[in-house]
Amino acid sequence: MKIAVIHGSTRENSNTEYLTYHAVPKEKGTHIYLRNHYVQPIIDKRHAADGFPVAKDDHEKLITKMLEHDIIVFSTPIYWYSMSGPMKIFIDRWSQIMKTAHFSHFREELKKKQAYLIVVGGDNPRVKGLPLIQQFNYICQFYGMAFSGYVIGKASRPGEMKKDLAALKAASLLLPTEI
Amino acid sequence: MKIAVIHGSTRENSNTEYLTYHAVPKEKGTHIYLRNHYVQPIIDKRHAADGFPVAKDDHEKLITKMLEHDIIVFSTPIYWYSMSGPMKIFIDRWSQIMKTAHFSHFREELKKKQAYLIVVGGDNPRVKGLPLIQQFNYICQFYGMAFSGYVIGKASRPGEMKKDLAALKAASLLLPTEI
Amino acid sequence: MKIAVIHGSTRENSNTEYLTYHAVPKEKGTHIYLRNHYVQPIIDKRHAADGFPVAKDDHEKLITKMLEHDIIVFSTPIYWYSMSGPMKIFIDRWSQIMKTAHFSHFREELKKKQAYLIVVGGDNPRVKGLPLIQQFNYICQFYGMAFSGYVIGKASRPGEMKKDLAALKAASLLLPTEI
Amino acid sequence: MKIAVIHGSTRENSNTEYLTYHAVPKEKGTHIYLRNHYVQPIIDKRHAADGFPVAKDDHEKLITKMLEHDIIVFSTPIYWYSMSGPMKIFIDRWSQIMKTAHFSHFREELKKKQAYLIVVGGDNPRVKGLPLIQQFNYICQFYGMAFSGYVIGKASRPGEMKKDLAALKAASLLLPTEI
Repeated sequence: MKIAVIHGSTRENSNTEYLTYHAVPKEKGTHIYLRNHYVQPIIDKRHAADGFPVAKDDHEKLITKMLEHDIIVFSTPIYWYSMSGPMKIFIDRWSQIMKTAHFSHFREELKKKQAYLIVVGGDNPRVKGLPLIQQFNYICQFYGMAFSGYVIGKASRPGEMKKDLAALKAASLLLPTEI
Repeated sequence: MKIAVIHGSTRENSNTEYLTYHAVPKEKGTHIYLRNHYVQPIIDKRHAADGFPVAKDDHEKLITKMLEHDIIVFSTPIYWYSMSGPMKIFIDRWSQIMKTAHFSHFREELKKKQAYLIVVGGDNPRVKGLPLIQQFNYICQFYGMAFSGYVIGKASRPGEMKKDLAALKAASLLLPTEI
Repeated sequence: MKIAVIHGSTRENSNTEYLTYHAVPKEKGTHIYLRNHYVQPIIDKRHAADGFPVAKDDHEKLITKMLEHDIIVFSTPIYWYSMSGPMKIFIDRWSQIMKTAHFSHFREELKKKQAYLIVVGGDNPRVKGLPLIQQFNYICQFYGMAFSGYVIGKASRPGEMKKDLAALKAASLLLPTEI
Repeated sequence: MKIAVIHGSTRENSNTEYLTYHAVPKEKGTHIYLRNHYVQPIIDKRHAADGFPVAKDDHEKLITKMLEHDIIVFSTPIYWYSMSGPMKIFIDRWSQIMKTAHFSHFREELKKKQAYLIVVGGDNPRVKGLPLIQQFNYICQFYGMAFSGYVIGKASRPGEMKKDLAALKAASLLLPTEI
């Protein structure tokens, strides 16, 4: 089982990353940091005569990389009770991928994946982060992708994640151990 | 009561716009189309020594404009069960605004506003759009801004919004009539 | 199309009833008032050696009646952000019905139905009632029953429902007109 | 800190109980099993001229007992994506308690409590149980009671709870250790 982690933090060494490494250590799996790649926000051309223009950015490369793995861990700080901008932009563009000829296998491929979600927020995330969990579940459902688990961490200031022992423990138990 | 509408559609004459004009006609209120403005995604510098760099984009101008109104209608298509990228980017940057000296009144100002939300989606939006409603409610709560109402429309292909008569009716009743 | 309305109000002439009659007038459809029937809370015997004991109450009779209709409207006041006790007890017992030999067709029958939900609450129901909508959606999903629509009304004191014009309008548009 | 556990299971030695004992062992705290007490469903008389009739059941006794503790753990199986009937009936009656003269301190007392929630379900509870968590949060908010944490377990058949190691671990970490 090959593991990819998609990191949506905009800050290096973020609380979210800290928690995520308890689920997938740095030296294990493929870690993709969206902040180090250029991805344009989607412009909805699903119904345009000419369709989507070719995007001159890193999105297709990232998607290709992601699809090479069996388990995909989405890791994002909670920004205004939802995923971070980079993560949102990355996922929004899936609508374009689905209309791209050489990614006609995208939906079928995701169907074979196991998805996990790791989120960290500062404002009562275990309650106020639940809509984000529900949205992510709908995304997985759309693709028929297994939503195999999630962890919600509580942290705001740099380094604070260390104190949420229950979340760190839950992260360490998130993925199947035999992997 | 002055009304501003923040449009998050990436498509001109979108279904979401169509529904929104039933709540606030084009000739009434101030209509701001985010797709016509340049706003950068936030990079979290809340805890950085130097704070946020000055953003060279339209965000502050849009915030200033928004604050001149009493009622703010947020109008967004549902992208992957959440708000559109442009709307997300616009709101994410509020974290930066709150750290900007000449916007120290931001939070206090929002507290005086009435917010409305209009969303349109194609995949069972009246159920799968509910987490988005809940998130928006949390945003309003954070600022102490009144969340005065919302409408969820169902449409996917261009023009389809016309058929959701119940949502069009609900939109036309959304804002207080005396305005 | 035959319509049954299951009323979960414990109060006669309740706000919830008032709103519901805007969707299904009293003289139309079959109105079942749970408060006029005796239904025992379930005791979970799904895994007991002897299974469920025969319940000496009105539940089976009500289920039989319900199944004679094509459209089922569930109407309940919001008690503590969830359905009323009588409605909860009525639905909880479906677990027993599914284990009852002469109701072996129950699940298949519900699959053919269209369900609607009408709820009324006093404490910000359009936001705080959303988890109830989501739960009801899961119930429908379990049975493969179409969840065709819902209306949320705001009222607390007797008679107050009259003032929520948007909800009354929405209720009047809830069911297909040709019925 | 005195701990009370309100058990909503209708089955002895249930999966929910098993998980709950990992948070509060049997020999610790006061364990109240609702199935061993008689509590009538509420009939809404908040607006009736004569108010609520005196209930001839165990509810007041249970409330008195509950209020003697600082931490209250609500433990319930998930029935149809919501709390069990006995737990719902127990909480619904709080509306009556608030109108009962000798419980005029009820709301103020709850404000001082810390509440925890433990739920167990068989159908994807970590996603489909989230509306129940949200509702419970609204209940706590209403009373100004701290909602200090929750655990969601997955189990259906008797004994199955043993297998959800992550939930058992989370339960063992749920309450503050110094208690």
